[in-house]
Amino acid sequence: MTLPLTARRVVLAARPSGIPQPEHFRLEDAPVPVPEPGQFLVRNEFLSVEPAMRGWVNATANYAAAVGLGEVMRSFAAGRVVASRHPLYQAGDAVMGMLGWQEYALSDGQGIRRKIREHDLPLSLSLGVLGINGVTAWFSFKELARAMPGDTVVVSTAAGGVGSAVGQIAKLAGCRTVGIAGGPAKCEQCLSEFGYDAALDYKASDFEQRLAQACPAGVDVYHDNTSGAISDAVMRLLNKNARVVVCGTASVANWDDWPQGPRVERHLLNKSASMHGFLIWDYEHRYEEAVARLAGWVRQGQLKYREDIVEGIARAPGSIADLYAGSNMGKRLIRLHGAP
Amino acid sequence: MTLPLTARRVVLAARPSGIPQPEHFRLEDAPVPVPEPGQFLVRNEFLSVEPAMRGWVNATANYAAAVGLGEVMRSFAAGRVVASRHPLYQAGDAVMGMLGWQEYALSDGQGIRRKIREHDLPLSLSLGVLGINGVTAWFSFKELARAMPGDTVVVSTAAGGVGSAVGQIAKLAGCRTVGIAGGPAKCEQCLSEFGYDAALDYKASDFEQRLAQACPAGVDVYHDNTSGAISDAVMRLLNKNARVVVCGTASVANWDDWPQGPRVERHLLNKSASMHGFLIWDYEHRYEEAVARLAGWVRQGQLKYREDIVEGIARAPGSIADLYAGSNMGKRLIRLHGAP
Repeated sequence: MTLPLTARRVVLAARPSGIPQPEHFRLEDAPVPVPEPGQFLVRNEFLSVEPAMRGWVNATANYAAAVGLGEVMRSFAAGRVVASRHPLYQAGDAVMGMLGWQEYALSDGQGIRRKIREHDLPLSLSLGVLGINGVTAWFSFKELARAMPGDTVVVSTAAGGVGSAVGQIAKLAGCRTVGIAGGPAKCEQCLSEFGYDAALDYKASDFEQRLAQACPAGVDVYHDNTSGAISDAVMRLLNKNARVVVCGTASVANWDDWPQGPRVERHLLNKSASMHGFLIWDYEHRYEEAVARLAGWVRQGQLKYREDIVEGIARAPGSIADLYAGSNMGKRLIRLHGAP
Repeated sequence: MTLPLTARRVVLAARPSGIPQPEHFRLEDAPVPVPEPGQFLVRNEFLSVEPAMRGWVNATANYAAAVGLGEVMRSFAAGRVVASRHPLYQAGDAVMGMLGWQEYALSDGQGIRRKIREHDLPLSLSLGVLGINGVTAWFSFKELARAMPGDTVVVSTAAGGVGSAVGQIAKLAGCRTVGIAGGPAKCEQCLSEFGYDAALDYKASDFEQRLAQACPAGVDVYHDNTSGAISDAVMRLLNKNARVVVCGTASVANWDDWPQGPRVERHLLNKSASMHGFLIWDYEHRYEEAVARLAGWVRQGQLKYREDIVEGIARAPGSIADLYAGSNMGKRLIRLHGAP
C-alpha cells in the first residue's frame, strides 16, 4: 500500500460548555507521519462516536483530563497497522484504541486497547458490541447489577450500544427486561431486535403511567444511561434492595451548570437500595474476559447489535451533537477510506 | 410490687406532615391491663426518642406502616416484666422492644427485640449505644462503609447516638474521622469525648472551606444522617470508589413535599462511587452479634456514649421536635417511675 503524504484529522477548535457542536471542531490536513523506532502507523478504518466524548472536551472536572485546544479529538478507532518499527506490532495487525479522529494515527503502543483477534467478525464490532459498549454492559451488569433470574431490569437508552447489550445480557440471565427509548422506531427495535419484554417511549405523555404498568413487580435493577426525568420516574418504583447502576447521563446537557433534581436519599433509605457509579476504565485490565464471552454470543446469534455507519471524516464534527439528538439507530461509527 | 389501676400513655392525635409537634399527640390515662394466657406485662423504665419516629407518623410511604390515629405512639422502650402468663418471659426479666410511649405495655412477645443480658450495665444503654443506635453504627459501618485503615470517614450528626458510635468504631478501625455537628458545644464533644480527628460546625459561614481543609486527602466514606446542604458539600469531596451510607435525613423537614438538590449521578460516575441506603430492620436477626461487640467496648471504655435523659412521660409529646431542633446533648431518653 502506498501511503499518502497528507491526511485529514479533526482537532478541537473551541471549548464547548455543553454538547459539542460542529463549530467546536476543525477539519484540517496534516502530514502522514513516518514511524521512528518504537512507533507504528495505524490506518484508521472506523472512528467511534460516544456520549462520553462530551465529557472529554468540557472544562468541568471529569474522570480524565480534557482534550486541549488544537489537539486531535480523542476517540476510539479501529484500524490496521500499515508501517511499524515497534517490536510488538506488525503491518497487517488489526488494533483498537485511543487513536483519535484522524485518518492515520502514529502510536508507540500506549493508547492501544487491544489487538483484534476475532478475524471472523467485522472490524467495526471492536468499537461497538465487542468494544467499550459491550464491555461496559458486561461489567456493569456482572459487577454492579448483581441480578437474579426473575428480577425486573429497567434500561434507559435501551436501544443504544450499551443499553441494547445490557438488555440482552439481562435476558440471558433470566431477568424481565424493560427498555426506555426515545420514539416509536427505537421502541420497536427494542422489542423486535433486542428482545425486551416491554419498551417505553419516554417522550410519550403517559410515560410514567406506562412505566409503572410495565413493572408490576417493581424495579430490581435500573441501568441508567440518562439521569434526569427518566431516572426520577424509575427511582419511584425501586424495590427493596434495588441496585441503580449509573453508567451515563445523556439527558443532562451541561454539568457546568449543575442540574437539580428530586433528592434520592429517601428512596435509597426506604428501600435499602443502592446507586453505583460505573466507569469502564476500572475494568480495563479485564477487557478480554468480556470480549471472549460477548464474541461467543455474537457468533451464536444470542447478542444482536445494530450499527449506524456514516461515511468520511467530514461527518465527525457534527456527530456528537447528532448522538445527543438521538438521530442514530445503533452504534454510530464513521467509516474512512471506504473500508469494508 | 403493687400495680396501679391506671397508667399514662401517649397516643397519636393528629397526623403531622412534617416534624411531629406536641399538638400531634395526646397524653391519656388508660387501665393497666392484666395479662391473659400467652401475654405478659412490662413496666417501662425508659422510652426512646429517635429521628426515625417522624417517618412512623407521616403519611408518606415509608419502610413501615404509619401509626394510626388514636394508637399508642410506636417507640422503643426498655423495662422489666412485672406479671407474666407467657412461657418464655418471667417477672423480673429486663426486655427491650417496641413497647410504645406508655408506662405499662402488654405484650405477647411480638415486638420484643431482646432480653437484656448485660446486667452489669445500665438498662438505658439498651436504647442507645447497645440499642438501635449502636447496632445501626455497627452494621452500617461493617456492611456498607467497608472502610480500610487510613480512610477518611466523614460523619454527619457526629455527636448523635448513631454518629458518635460510627465515629468511634471508625477510629478503632484505623480511619481518620471527621465529624459534622451543629454548634460549638457538640463539636467540642466530638473532639473531647468521641475522639474525632476534626469536628466541623455546619452552621459556620465557612463550613464548606473548613470541610475541605479537614479532608486534605478527600472523603472515602460518608456516613450521612442528614441529607441536604451538608451532604451536598461532602459529595463534592468524594474520592475514587467512595462509599456514601445513607442512614438518616435529619435535615429534611418534610418528604411529603419532596425536596430538590444537586443531582448526584455525576459525582458517582466520575468517582466510581456508590450510595447505599441503610435500614436497621434488615439486620434484626443479627442484633446480638453487634451488641456483644459493642458491650465489650463499653466495658473497656473504648466506646463512649452520652445520654440526655428527661423525666416523665409528659415530656414525650414534644420530644421529637426537640430532637430535630438539636437541643439534646446525647441520646434522648424519657425516664419513667423515677427509674434508676
